[in-house]
Amino acid sequence: MKALGRHVLAEFYGCDFNALNDVELVERAMVEAALEAGAEVRECVFHKFSPQGVSGVVVISESHLAIHTWPELGYAAVDVFTCGEKVDPWEACNYLTKCFGAKEVVAHEQKRGIIPASYLQAAKAV
Amino acid sequence: MKALGRHVLAEFYGCDFNALNDVELVERAMVEAALEAGAEVRECVFHKFSPQGVSGVVVISESHLAIHTWPELGYAAVDVFTCGEKVDPWEACNYLTKCFGAKEVVAHEQKRGIIPASYLQAAKAV
Repeated sequence: MKALGRHVLAEFYGCDFNALNDVELVERAMVEAALEAGAEVRECVFHKFSPQGVSGVVVISESHLAIHTWPELGYAAVDVFTCGEKVDPWEACNYLTKCFGAKEVVAHEQKRGIIPASYLQAAKAV
Repeated sequence: MKALGRHVLAEFYGCDFNALNDVELVERAMVEAALEAGAEVRECVFHKFSPQGVSGVVVISESHLAIHTWPELGYAAVDVFTCGEKVDPWEACNYLTKCFGAKEVVAHEQKRGIIPASYLQAAKAV
């Protein structure tokens, strides 16, 4: 069985402090990144922390994008989890690299939802 | 430098169809899992898909929990991302295993936010 989903986990280093600390900019960038990847946006929640930092998630029909920022370290943890053939999580990741002025991005893709045959058979039998 | 966060990526197999397809049950389980782990819940978004499946995220002060379910396959993709010393992502994961009646969980933890020294120095210099 093919994987149900692709999950890109990305470490963004050397980002712009102001970009990572601006909750409206971060939310806009995340929504645009989802659209850039070909996803359908369902819902968003974003939260600004005091004195700094932003956390937020965009739920898409094809899974989700999440971000947590540490502006004082120029760092953001970015996740792009997509399912289906139409959406490319790397396009979202590349778009966000530009938005935050990241000097370096270390990212890898994990396959999610490779169901063992025994569970597939059990599911079909129900 | 120590990692800023711990991210548990978990594949839940052999889960109960009805549990994975009940958006209210899934949301309640995810919120309770966050509290079980010692997290502070900030915001939730959950979405029920037609004909089946649930996606949702709990934003916590310490990062997030996310889930995507495929009830027809008895499968859920679960992420628990926490930062700080107080919260244990594995407690949330173990709690959810019980809620969904998972027969098997394949999970691993990734460290997030290990900042290279050069970027730490650059951040301090700003």
